[in-house]
Amino acid sequence: MTKKVTDVNEYGEFGLIDHLTKSFGSTNPSTLKGIGDDAAIIKNAKDYTAISTDMLMEGIHFDIRYSPLKHLGYKSVVVNLSDIYAMNVIPSQITVSMAISSKYSVEALEEFYDGIKTACDFYNVDLIGGDTTSSLKGMAISVTAIGTIADKSKITYRSGAKKGDILCVTGSLGAAYLGLQILEREKQLFLSDKQMTPELDSHTYLIERQLKPEANKAAIEYFDKIGLIPTSMIDISDGLSSDLMHICKQSDLGAFIEEDKVPMIEEAKAAALVFNMDPITCALNGGEDYELLFTLDPMDIEKIKFMPDVHIIGEMVDKKDKLTLHTPGGSIHPLKAQGWNHF
Amino acid sequence: MTKKVTDVNEYGEFGLIDHLTKSFGSTNPSTLKGIGDDAAIIKNAKDYTAISTDMLMEGIHFDIRYSPLKHLGYKSVVVNLSDIYAMNVIPSQITVSMAISSKYSVEALEEFYDGIKTACDFYNVDLIGGDTTSSLKGMAISVTAIGTIADKSKITYRSGAKKGDILCVTGSLGAAYLGLQILEREKQLFLSDKQMTPELDSHTYLIERQLKPEANKAAIEYFDKIGLIPTSMIDISDGLSSDLMHICKQSDLGAFIEEDKVPMIEEAKAAALVFNMDPITCALNGGEDYELLFTLDPMDIEKIKFMPDVHIIGEMVDKKDKLTLHTPGGSIHPLKAQGWNHF
Repeated sequence: MTKKVTDVNEYGEFGLIDHLTKSFGSTNPSTLKGIGDDAAIIKNAKDYTAISTDMLMEGIHFDIRYSPLKHLGYKSVVVNLSDIYAMNVIPSQITVSMAISSKYSVEALEEFYDGIKTACDFYNVDLIGGDTTSSLKGMAISVTAIGTIADKSKITYRSGAKKGDILCVTGSLGAAYLGLQILEREKQLFLSDKQMTPELDSHTYLIERQLKPEANKAAIEYFDKIGLIPTSMIDISDGLSSDLMHICKQSDLGAFIEEDKVPMIEEAKAAALVFNMDPITCALNGGEDYELLFTLDPMDIEKIKFMPDVHIIGEMVDKKDKLTLHTPGGSIHPLKAQGWNHF
Repeated sequence: MTKKVTDVNEYGEFGLIDHLTKSFGSTNPSTLKGIGDDAAIIKNAKDYTAISTDMLMEGIHFDIRYSPLKHLGYKSVVVNLSDIYAMNVIPSQITVSMAISSKYSVEALEEFYDGIKTACDFYNVDLIGGDTTSSLKGMAISVTAIGTIADKSKITYRSGAKKGDILCVTGSLGAAYLGLQILEREKQLFLSDKQMTPELDSHTYLIERQLKPEANKAAIEYFDKIGLIPTSMIDISDGLSSDLMHICKQSDLGAFIEEDKVPMIEEAKAAALVFNMDPITCALNGGEDYELLFTLDPMDIEKIKFMPDVHIIGEMVDKKDKLTLHTPGGSIHPLKAQGWNHF
């Protein structure tokens, strides 16, 4: 009898996690929310702790040939803080673990930690622990972010959207993905001709969105200031389609997006065309934007009228109406999650 | 001008972390204890959260050729829970992140998660999050453990020992290290002759201490039951010498250990002799025992008289008297930390 061998690609990232953790339950009353949202929520005696963790692997999540270590340190922190903000919680602490091969010098690690420190200072979080060890090959980074919130009713899960809720997104989409395309193109040109100088200056913004993204702290602070609690929220790490699908699935709803309401800056649209891509495809499936996707009770729409850089892009509908894209020409297309597949 | 390149080995693990994080401070009032103990402590509205994280890398911390994945999953959890217990806190949640190369099948991961589940069930902790992604080569594991405690005065730091305090250790030492020596020996024999059958059965206990260690939950529960709070505590992961040195350094003290009081089981002593090692060296520097090393106010010595499997091994002394080993013959040897150096 031979042992059964199933390739992990048969499941995909989310399917694999679901499959591997389906037999795990919660036994501690303090476990308020486990696997399946941007962060887990632990009930303390009088308040709540949100906790989220991400792993970044060299050659998979970053390419050391064009990602400066300072930027990498910064980004490693930011992508985790973004998950805490997506729960409508302000992060306050992080831990950073790192495994490195012998090719990394102390000076390289100083740059990496300099990026971590810059992020800690900017987002007002404390580095409180971690682990530093070696790897046989490449760099592995694991960051855990922690935040505390007093009022349980302010926590925003993916599962809270209601039919008729307004769908909103902050900032603009697709830029980080297009920044990556530019970096990859210049890397290939450089690898084929080491004398060439990468042409990056004309795309500073797109490249920065890829190498040094920001988490949307301002939006969460604004919600608090105006007394608004989104009915659901998620950060856009895998792409608008894929992340909206998480909200739909967990809220047991469908949604539509108006194509011409999806925010993209001109520079991103222009870059998409250079790569022979449809700009809306980059916005829908690009990923790594770390903007916030959230739903609002229509009664609250008045509250966001002066909120900077926020866009109403669609509406939550009945589950049977699925997830669709409405084009300016009046066509309706089904949306599929085509976010990052890490396997 | 050439860029300065310093090898990380010039610092060692602890020196490197100190060097890289020296410019980091705490700005959030909720950060009660940051880097430098078994776990960090976060102050909540009414209670306290202990949080600790560890990274395990294939080829560095484990060898997949003799570490069954179920055991590996179990051990990954246990080594982190041990850090929370060492703060005198009961862990209640964990997150597990994992990066794997294409050589791992779904069935292999099921085994790994089976081990995680077994540990969760045994120690009554909930898996509440994590990340599953791919790596170019080998497996990387990062576990974060979380526990909550109501009473701040019960938290045991490395820094709390006082001169004259009694030094105690639970269980027995050196077994995990000798288990590793046996596994390595049999691996080498197997690699030189694939027909041979590894001779492991006669060393079941030592091998189990290496592949499937346990965290000392019982000791922490006993402390609670008898109302005892150690003045300082650490779990023995790097070796008795190295971990005692952390207590000495952070409590600004010296210590002596009575050699013939250091607990070792006969099987471990016998195995040490087979490998031409001095048994006490294995106990002092072996590491991975995950026993608890703690100090007691001498007034409390009466309280542990019926505590199972605990051993008084020495005493905390003035800093100028350093860290020494007293042999049965009456000699005094200086002790050096020779724990695992991961670089």
